[in-house]
Amino acid sequence: MGTPWSHRFAYRTGVVKSSAIRELLKLTQRPEVISFAGGLPAPDVFPVARFQEACRQVLEQHGSQALQYSTTEGFLPLREMIAKNLQRYGILATPDNVLLTSGSQQALDLIAKLLINRGDRVLVEAPTYLGALQAFNVFGPDYVPVPTDDDGLRTDMLEDALRAGPKFMYILPNFQNPSGVTLSLQRREELVYLSDKYGVPIVEDDPYGQLRYEGQHLPPLVVLDRENLRRDEGYTLGNVIYLSTFSKTLAPGLRLGWIVAPQEVVAKLVQLKQGADLHTSTFVQMVAYEVAQDGFIDEHVKLIRQVYGERRDVMLEALEKFFPHEVTWTRPHGGLFLWVTMPEGADCDELLKEAIRQDVAFVPGNCFFPKEGEGLRNFRLNFSNATTEQIREGIRRLSIAVKAQIERHLLVMA
Amino acid sequence: MGTPWSHRFAYRTGVVKSSAIRELLKLTQRPEVISFAGGLPAPDVFPVARFQEACRQVLEQHGSQALQYSTTEGFLPLREMIAKNLQRYGILATPDNVLLTSGSQQALDLIAKLLINRGDRVLVEAPTYLGALQAFNVFGPDYVPVPTDDDGLRTDMLEDALRAGPKFMYILPNFQNPSGVTLSLQRREELVYLSDKYGVPIVEDDPYGQLRYEGQHLPPLVVLDRENLRRDEGYTLGNVIYLSTFSKTLAPGLRLGWIVAPQEVVAKLVQLKQGADLHTSTFVQMVAYEVAQDGFIDEHVKLIRQVYGERRDVMLEALEKFFPHEVTWTRPHGGLFLWVTMPEGADCDELLKEAIRQDVAFVPGNCFFPKEGEGLRNFRLNFSNATTEQIREGIRRLSIAVKAQIERHLLVMA
Repeated sequence: MGTPWSHRFAYRTGVVKSSAIRELLKLTQRPEVISFAGGLPAPDVFPVARFQEACRQVLEQHGSQALQYSTTEGFLPLREMIAKNLQRYGILATPDNVLLTSGSQQALDLIAKLLINRGDRVLVEAPTYLGALQAFNVFGPDYVPVPTDDDGLRTDMLEDALRAGPKFMYILPNFQNPSGVTLSLQRREELVYLSDKYGVPIVEDDPYGQLRYEGQHLPPLVVLDRENLRRDEGYTLGNVIYLSTFSKTLAPGLRLGWIVAPQEVVAKLVQLKQGADLHTSTFVQMVAYEVAQDGFIDEHVKLIRQVYGERRDVMLEALEKFFPHEVTWTRPHGGLFLWVTMPEGADCDELLKEAIRQDVAFVPGNCFFPKEGEGLRNFRLNFSNATTEQIREGIRRLSIAVKAQIERHLLVMA
Repeated sequence: MGTPWSHRFAYRTGVVKSSAIRELLKLTQRPEVISFAGGLPAPDVFPVARFQEACRQVLEQHGSQALQYSTTEGFLPLREMIAKNLQRYGILATPDNVLLTSGSQQALDLIAKLLINRGDRVLVEAPTYLGALQAFNVFGPDYVPVPTDDDGLRTDMLEDALRAGPKFMYILPNFQNPSGVTLSLQRREELVYLSDKYGVPIVEDDPYGQLRYEGQHLPPLVVLDRENLRRDEGYTLGNVIYLSTFSKTLAPGLRLGWIVAPQEVVAKLVQLKQGADLHTSTFVQMVAYEVAQDGFIDEHVKLIRQVYGERRDVMLEALEKFFPHEVTWTRPHGGLFLWVTMPEGADCDELLKEAIRQDVAFVPGNCFFPKEGEGLRNFRLNFSNATTEQIREGIRRLSIAVKAQIERHLLVMA
C-alpha cells in the first residue's frame, strides 16, 4: 500500500504541466549564456545601501515588532503610503482598500481562489502573463482568449467574448507581459464601458505602470471605472481589482505586492490570505516601508527608467541592425519586454534550442497562450536584466539562429 | 450591473466564515488585557542583534542576489542545513526533499491544493489546528474527526475512521495545538502501521518538536514510517509528508517554514508554489540562514526552552492555585499551549465575553473543531507570550470569570 503518491493527487495537479521549456531554460544558467528569458530587474540598480540602513533602523527601533506575527492585512504605515501614492494617479483608495501580498503572484492566487469555480470562464488577453495562467489553472477555469495588437486588447472583439459569460477579465494595460504593448485610451474607455454593460469585473495587473520611457501616462482602468460609474465617495464600489508590486520598483527578492479593491472584496481576500500564509513577512514589510519612504522610491524609479529606457533603445537598435527584414517586433513605451514575430511557419521552440547552442536565450511565445499550439512564431525578449554590451552581443547571436531557421524554412517552402 | 461582488465569489468563500470570535479577540489588543489567546512567541527572546549582524552580512556580501528573484525550491544552503539538522532526528532527507515555504501555513495551503478534491475526506485530530482547517476548507473537504486524549490521537478509534477512506491524515504529534498533548510512542507505531495498512498517508505537522521541557524526545512519524517500510536507501518513498518552521525557533515575522517529502511530491509542490507566490523572499531565506548557522539556532532553542518551560510551570501553578476543582487541564511536556476543560454544560464563548470584561483572553475550544457546537466546554491557553507576572495575574483574573460561570451554571442546574 502507501506509495506512490501520484494516484492521490488532486485533479488540479494535472493541469500543472512539467514544462519542457523550463527544463531547456535551466541550461541558460551557464555563465556564458546571455539570457533575455527571465523577467529579472537589473541587479545593478538595487538600492543595497538604502536597504542596509533600513534593516538597521527597523531592527534597532522595532526589532520585536518586526520579527513577530502581524495582521493579515499588512503593515498599516505601508498601506497608508501605498494608498497615498495611488491617489496621485486618481485612484481614491484608503488603507482599508489595500491588502499586502507575498508578491503580486500571490494576489493572482488569492483572486483565483476568490472567483474561480471549476469550469468558470476567465477572459484573458492572448498572449498573457504566464504566471497568471499558472495561478488560475489550479482552479480549473476555461479560458476565453481575446487577441491583442499594437494598441493592446482588441476591444472590437470583446463583446462577443463577454457574451460567453466570463467570471472576470484579466488585463495588463501597461507594457504588457509578454507583448510590451499598451492599451490605448480609447480602448480603455471601451473596455470599462463593456465591463459595466456586461457586469464582468476586471482584474487590472499593473506591475510596470511606473516604468514608462516615452509618451504620456494613461489613466488606469480602476480610475476610468470609477468615473464611468460617477461615484465620488471613495473607492467602496467598482468593477476593478487593481494589482501592483514593489518587485520592479524596489526589489523582487522581497516578494511584496498589493491588491487594491472595494472593502467587500478585501475582506474576503483577507480571510483567504490568512489560510494561505497568515500574513506577508512583517520584517520585509517594515524594511520596504523604511526604504520607500520620504520620496526615495520616486527618485529610485527615475533611475530605473533611465537605465531600462537605454537598454530598450539598445535592444531596438540591435534588432534593427542584426535581424532579417522578415521578422517584426513591438516597440514598447515602457516595462521590461518586447515581442518578436517570426515569419509564418516558424517554430520558436526549435529556435530556442538553436539559440541555446549560440549561448543566448528567450521564452518561446506558446508559453503565454492558454491553449497549446498558439504563438509558435513568437518569442519574448527581456531588456531590463542584461547590460547594453550584452544586449548587442546577445541579439547578434540570436540573429544567427533566426536567420538559420528562416533559411531552412525557405528551403522547406521551396 | 457590476457591483456588488458577492454573487461572483467562488463556492469556497462560503466556508470561510467571518468569525465572531475574531471580532471579539480584536478587543483584546487593549494594553490592559493579558492575552493567552494568540500563539505568539515571546518577543523578548528574539535574537535581534544576531539578525542585525546577519542583515549586514547578507547585504554587504550578496546584496544583488538577496534582492533578486530566486528558485521556487528555496535557497540551497538553507535546504542543506535543514536536511542536515533533520538527520539528527533520523529523517534521512536530502536537500532535494526540502521545499521552503512562506511559513508552514503555506505548506498547509500547498498540501490542500495537492491532495484535496472537493468532497474528499480528510482525517483530523479533534481538536486540531485552526489554521489547518482554514487552509483545507478552501478546497471543500469532508472531515473525519478522531478524538484525542492525554496520549494524543485515539488510535483505538482510528481503524473505523480509516475505513471511511480519507485522502490523508493531518496529525500534530508533539505538544499539539490546541491541546498540548503528545502522541505516545506506542500510538505512533500503531498510527504508522495503520497508515501503511490502509494506504492513507500522513501529513505530520511539527512546529514545536524542539520545544520540549521535560521527558524524552519521541521519534517523528516520518522516521517510524521509514523503519516500518524497511527502506534504507534515503527518503525517496514513504507515507509521510513532514512540516516544520522557523516561527517558533527564530521568529514568526520571517514567515519561513519547510516541507519534507518524497521527491515525487516535492516536484508537484514546487509547481503549485510557483503559481502561489513564485518563491519565498530570497532576502528572508538568506538572512535566516545567516542567523541559524554555526550552531546558533541550537543554542537559541536552549534559551527558548528555558524561558517557555518556566512560563508553563508558572501557568500550571497558577491554575492549581486559582481555578476551582471542577475544572481540569492538560500538562504539556513542551510547546506553547494547554487545554482547559470546564464542567459539563459550560459555554466558553460566553466565558470569553466575561473574561474580556476581566481584561484577560483565550481562544474558545469550538474554533478547533471542524464542526460547529463541539468543544464548547474547552478553551486554549498560550503560555509562551506573557511574562510570569502577567501569567499569574491573568490566571487570577480568568478564575473570576470561570468561577462566576460555574456558579451560575450550578444555579441553573439547581
